[in-house]
Amino acid sequence: MFTKLSRAKVFRDPLYGYIQVNYKIISDLIDSREVQRLRRIRQLSGVSMVFQTAEHSRFTHSLGAYQMANLVIDNVEGMDKVSEYERVVFLIAALLHDIGHGPYSHAFEHVLECSHEDMTVKLILSKETEVNKILSIQDGLAEDVASVIRHDNKHPLIESLVSSQLDVDRMDYLSRDAYMTGATYGHIDYFRILRSMKIIDGTVCVRASGVHSIEAYLMSRYHMYFQVYYHPVARAYETILEGIYERIKDLSMEGVRIDASIVSFLNVLKNNDDIESYIDLDDTNVNGFIKQLTWCSDPVLNKLANAFEKRHLYNFVELVNEPDEKFLDDLKKKYSNMEYGKYFYKNVKVSGVAYMHSPKSDINAIRVLLPDGSLKILDQYSPIIKGLKSSSYKEIERIFYFED
Amino acid sequence: MFTKLSRAKVFRDPLYGYIQVNYKIISDLIDSREVQRLRRIRQLSGVSMVFQTAEHSRFTHSLGAYQMANLVIDNVEGMDKVSEYERVVFLIAALLHDIGHGPYSHAFEHVLECSHEDMTVKLILSKETEVNKILSIQDGLAEDVASVIRHDNKHPLIESLVSSQLDVDRMDYLSRDAYMTGATYGHIDYFRILRSMKIIDGTVCVRASGVHSIEAYLMSRYHMYFQVYYHPVARAYETILEGIYERIKDLSMEGVRIDASIVSFLNVLKNNDDIESYIDLDDTNVNGFIKQLTWCSDPVLNKLANAFEKRHLYNFVELVNEPDEKFLDDLKKKYSNMEYGKYFYKNVKVSGVAYMHSPKSDINAIRVLLPDGSLKILDQYSPIIKGLKSSSYKEIERIFYFED
Amino acid sequence: MFTKLSRAKVFRDPLYGYIQVNYKIISDLIDSREVQRLRRIRQLSGVSMVFQTAEHSRFTHSLGAYQMANLVIDNVEGMDKVSEYERVVFLIAALLHDIGHGPYSHAFEHVLECSHEDMTVKLILSKETEVNKILSIQDGLAEDVASVIRHDNKHPLIESLVSSQLDVDRMDYLSRDAYMTGATYGHIDYFRILRSMKIIDGTVCVRASGVHSIEAYLMSRYHMYFQVYYHPVARAYETILEGIYERIKDLSMEGVRIDASIVSFLNVLKNNDDIESYIDLDDTNVNGFIKQLTWCSDPVLNKLANAFEKRHLYNFVELVNEPDEKFLDDLKKKYSNMEYGKYFYKNVKVSGVAYMHSPKSDINAIRVLLPDGSLKILDQYSPIIKGLKSSSYKEIERIFYFED
Amino acid sequence: MFTKLSRAKVFRDPLYGYIQVNYKIISDLIDSREVQRLRRIRQLSGVSMVFQTAEHSRFTHSLGAYQMANLVIDNVEGMDKVSEYERVVFLIAALLHDIGHGPYSHAFEHVLECSHEDMTVKLILSKETEVNKILSIQDGLAEDVASVIRHDNKHPLIESLVSSQLDVDRMDYLSRDAYMTGATYGHIDYFRILRSMKIIDGTVCVRASGVHSIEAYLMSRYHMYFQVYYHPVARAYETILEGIYERIKDLSMEGVRIDASIVSFLNVLKNNDDIESYIDLDDTNVNGFIKQLTWCSDPVLNKLANAFEKRHLYNFVELVNEPDEKFLDDLKKKYSNMEYGKYFYKNVKVSGVAYMHSPKSDINAIRVLLPDGSLKILDQYSPIIKGLKSSSYKEIERIFYFED
Repeated sequence: MFTKLSRAKVFRDPLYGYIQVNYKIISDLIDSREVQRLRRIRQLSGVSMVFQTAEHSRFTHSLGAYQMANLVIDNVEGMDKVSEYERVVFLIAALLHDIGHGPYSHAFEHVLECSHEDMTVKLILSKETEVNKILSIQDGLAEDVASVIRHDNKHPLIESLVSSQLDVDRMDYLSRDAYMTGATYGHIDYFRILRSMKIIDGTVCVRASGVHSIEAYLMSRYHMYFQVYYHPVARAYETILEGIYERIKDLSMEGVRIDASIVSFLNVLKNNDDIESYIDLDDTNVNGFIKQLTWCSDPVLNKLANAFEKRHLYNFVELVNEPDEKFLDDLKKKYSNMEYGKYFYKNVKVSGVAYMHSPKSDINAIRVLLPDGSLKILDQYSPIIKGLKSSSYKEIERIFYFED
Repeated sequence: MFTKLSRAKVFRDPLYGYIQVNYKIISDLIDSREVQRLRRIRQLSGVSMVFQTAEHSRFTHSLGAYQMANLVIDNVEGMDKVSEYERVVFLIAALLHDIGHGPYSHAFEHVLECSHEDMTVKLILSKETEVNKILSIQDGLAEDVASVIRHDNKHPLIESLVSSQLDVDRMDYLSRDAYMTGATYGHIDYFRILRSMKIIDGTVCVRASGVHSIEAYLMSRYHMYFQVYYHPVARAYETILEGIYERIKDLSMEGVRIDASIVSFLNVLKNNDDIESYIDLDDTNVNGFIKQLTWCSDPVLNKLANAFEKRHLYNFVELVNEPDEKFLDDLKKKYSNMEYGKYFYKNVKVSGVAYMHSPKSDINAIRVLLPDGSLKILDQYSPIIKGLKSSSYKEIERIFYFED
Repeated sequence: MFTKLSRAKVFRDPLYGYIQVNYKIISDLIDSREVQRLRRIRQLSGVSMVFQTAEHSRFTHSLGAYQMANLVIDNVEGMDKVSEYERVVFLIAALLHDIGHGPYSHAFEHVLECSHEDMTVKLILSKETEVNKILSIQDGLAEDVASVIRHDNKHPLIESLVSSQLDVDRMDYLSRDAYMTGATYGHIDYFRILRSMKIIDGTVCVRASGVHSIEAYLMSRYHMYFQVYYHPVARAYETILEGIYERIKDLSMEGVRIDASIVSFLNVLKNNDDIESYIDLDDTNVNGFIKQLTWCSDPVLNKLANAFEKRHLYNFVELVNEPDEKFLDDLKKKYSNMEYGKYFYKNVKVSGVAYMHSPKSDINAIRVLLPDGSLKILDQYSPIIKGLKSSSYKEIERIFYFED
Repeated sequence: MFTKLSRAKVFRDPLYGYIQVNYKIISDLIDSREVQRLRRIRQLSGVSMVFQTAEHSRFTHSLGAYQMANLVIDNVEGMDKVSEYERVVFLIAALLHDIGHGPYSHAFEHVLECSHEDMTVKLILSKETEVNKILSIQDGLAEDVASVIRHDNKHPLIESLVSSQLDVDRMDYLSRDAYMTGATYGHIDYFRILRSMKIIDGTVCVRASGVHSIEAYLMSRYHMYFQVYYHPVARAYETILEGIYERIKDLSMEGVRIDASIVSFLNVLKNNDDIESYIDLDDTNVNGFIKQLTWCSDPVLNKLANAFEKRHLYNFVELVNEPDEKFLDDLKKKYSNMEYGKYFYKNVKVSGVAYMHSPKSDINAIRVLLPDGSLKILDQYSPIIKGLKSSSYKEIERIFYFED
């Protein structure tokens, strides 16, 4: 159904040794403008300000998620019963799941009021993209891939393998980000995990004998979140960027001309269906116009752009235990009275648990397959996970503020 | 005070790169008969029946624990205030802490009714050992090292570094056993842990910023216990051995002569102060006489020795959830009525938690140093550990029984 | 002499675990504009087109070379006799040795006709740089660091440790590039190498017992060069860039205005003493203006910029064995007759040997210290290296040409 | 043709993650007495006296060679054209290739005057072995496996994959011994090597594009030989053993009774077709009777056994450069005049080259597949290998002598 390459293409990868491409359509998609663009968007945005070696792009992760999908197909019991068509949809969805990300994505989503998943779907379905053209060789294919990203329950197994508590996205990025930062606690035993997984009645479950590898994986995830992804210095850096994005948006709505090459950015702000401009945007433009904005006449942009360039970061206080209320009140007052104060004072919350599934239903829960063939929800099976679930919730509220 | 070698001796080690020896006394102790004997006793007894690559000896671990002590001295804040004398006591205690182990130690301790720690103390203090002779160059040294092993609160800091919830013994063996078995969940970030530790008022604590590395370490330990150390097949193998030891003991008390080279073993059974015989015993003798016992006329020894050699292991049932009471009752009856049944039916419990300190006091608790300088007990600081402590208790009761 | 930080700063690094900074001046230099700029210049330019994970910056390598200098100080016998002043000069030179690199440095040097080493010296000595200001706290320090980079024999030991056949630069980049690409043959046993090195009469030599680790290192280097650094696809990519740089230079000399943000680039082309513009230049500008040039009216820039963006690479033939002379002649004719042909046809040679020292003298040779205390030139001691030296010379000549 | 297991058996292995067994016959062979016996014979004999962590058994290597055969089948182009029967012969031969080894094999072969390959063939074909019984399920199978070990050109492809310059035996043991000793220069990129290999007309060749991985592999091998396998201290240890074996042989031929449990050893000395006794022999017996011999009345055995136990090793001189002829002559004279001197003075030569194929023919040569489809002998293609071949020959002659 899908043409195979006469000789497999391989990409060297430090995590998997080699990433192998057998289908022509995968090779074409990798070469497409939208996937290549991910070479110019960093996977971890501001994190490299703290972990300086974490400079890898979303491109390497996208190839990695694709390879993890290959490993799922080769190692998870029951995948051989999935049709070739669905398997290729899986591989494609794994490869394309992040193409909707913008530069410094978190801040970008915030000002754009549009999630990167929605943008991924748009790019897959838009007639303007190379990705869409490649997918059009087969009727309904683009729509099927998009439906997996949208999670609309048309291909529930593939959807859960692409995005759930235990998916190819997370398994690649935890391993990769650990490798790139040198954070040893992030290493997961993905091969053991894959061999523990089994497809039963079209859903993924985990054999009881492999639960310990899932416990270790959930702990790794928890640690990576709080030690790496939510690191306050990385967040301070992204907070500056959010201010810059916000200010550009506000000025553009007032009709003020900004002296920097931000046409694409403005186009997207006005209309996030402007696919051409969206694709044009990446870390290169944004880093480029921020450099130009260091000479900008607008006092807010000038100050923030200089802060970004010179790593003059926000200060922050973490609201843990008994915060100093007096200090916080004064701070709040100071910035609410200050001209442009809203760009220089931000309240940011991050939270996470080691493991969670929807409290309302068990739909996202990891299911454990007992030796007698019955299934049990993970946190009812593993006392460790039960403990984690009830006790590991951690919310960090931080006030970032800018001092001259 | 202690003579240094003119040029450091180095031992290549896959975990640390190199293990370095600077003091002459350490070099002499490594060359002593009691430490060299550990080359002939496997670190993990029957575990290599399941994880076939786990064939390493207690000697490599003893060098490793010594090296970890070196790393503690070089990396833990506050160790520079400890006197050279106490630091050398620490290095020596780390090197010698396991010399009291016998062959297949767990089964051995059981039949001998004497812990390996007690034997270590005996060997250090006995005038018959080379170790004791070497330690005698300095008055009181042997006694000081013994007191660290005995945990009698004379050198409380050194005692806790040698044996506690977070010590050089555990840090080496978790890393080493993970390396040797290939169990990825066992890797611990020991360098990060060491840099988090700080000596305050003569006790070890852990900086709040490093608590995540302790959480990960405790999880690793938990997984290594239940996935590796308590593996039922390894335990079944050791259970055979326990039967052999027991039977030899019973026969010798009845005065029956056993046709195998077990003089040293019998000597030790009669009198565990027979140091010469104790040192003579190692895996080589025990494996040797078990081979001879496969021709033994005693039906029990004959059967068990053949089972050991041919890996004809015990069956087992794990008493989890709702065990089949009828089956268990029948089993019990069958073996209690059987001649020699007690050698072929064993009830074994293992239990563990991810983290525990004495419920009565906080003496063994890991202490967390908060940014404001105050100290908190780990499980009151870390919700993860609190959850682990309350939920991770796991007891496995297994019935091992022998079928022809 | 040099102020120490009250608590050491650490940078997590996947190669060394941690990179430690104890001196305030090192910390200040890391924070300087010129060193931070290296975050925006990739270590391996076009290599990530082939090895997609090789996206690391010169910043991570510069920190790594600094850390390797620390390891040299701690592990090489005889370094304790080097004065603290010279040791700090060593650390600084290791940290700053690459600050003179421009974006896509190879192509850049070519068009600029100025080596990156010369630019490094300029930046260190220029009153305009932050680096120079920081070094000025101590009379003569900037000059001493520059002299090490210039290799003018004022601090011969430090010079050879910073740049020679066996230096901190190479030891870090071979390890790092191997780690980042996943090329296993690049791993070198740097710890073993360091422990083999010894300072005798102010020059570095290698103990005979460690020669095998040097042999392995030289082989690694050879393989990394031909498998990674000289990879034809990476070179094809850089050849496009060279064409772009060349064309901009030619146009600017004819006075033609180019419609892209290339002020800094033009300034540097005119005058490479324009430090301010030089520092402004990094991958961000260059990638930025290449994106703009895809709309450029000049046919050469338009074509090359589009080729760069869309990875429409040059074709190439390698002139090995018996090349097809007819084909090559026709090719040459075709491009010499073509308008702008010189931008689309390039003859590129790369060559290397596994080991070489100056044929005229033994100044750069690695010296082996024999057990009897005498010294021998490496290739007279090791038959392997002798063989490599005489046989490993490899020159690759390639014709790159552009086809529509 | 060969029954498959209903669910694959897996063995955890630190090198490959998992070793997978799909055929019932492989599983049965692993459980056989002759393969299990390899758990009790160390892979590297005396090497663990120098590299103390190299304590692994021939069993782990045999499983590893089997797994490498699996990897060859899955990754080498052209293996899909080999029949299932031949592939299983390959897997079996890889698993069994070392079963003929005795305890401390090198010394053992010397005194027995029978190579371990010959013994492997005997054990495979003897009606007394479990291995033979298992192979008998299929007519001619035992003979086919034996013919592969014998290299008698019946299955030339399989023979070369099991034993040649580039085979599953070497690829596993280089990797494994490097992992176990911590010798970083031993790591080989076996996955890259496998992907470079191709079966053409029933013989293995290596694609030109992968030659660098072969170059690196040959260098690794060279270094492992001279740094690890031929280490003088390991050799000194084995030299003692050779003396013990020799003396036992001499005494037994004189009819002298030896007071130690050496029945099996004597049986084998008399008749190496005594399979039952041969299988009974392993490190356990030998270590056991050496311990007993420390009390032996024969002065030679007494001295050597005590030396073995107490690591009182032979002295040695290496005959390199200009040896001290006077000293050597005196030494020789002293021992030739001494009673029993021949047991205490040994001249041992080891030699090796980085790469060699038979000088008379190119039969064993590694063949390189050029892009144009032609084949070339490796050392005519790679200047590095040509250099190695001509220059890397290294012979070490050492005199070991015993001093009280």
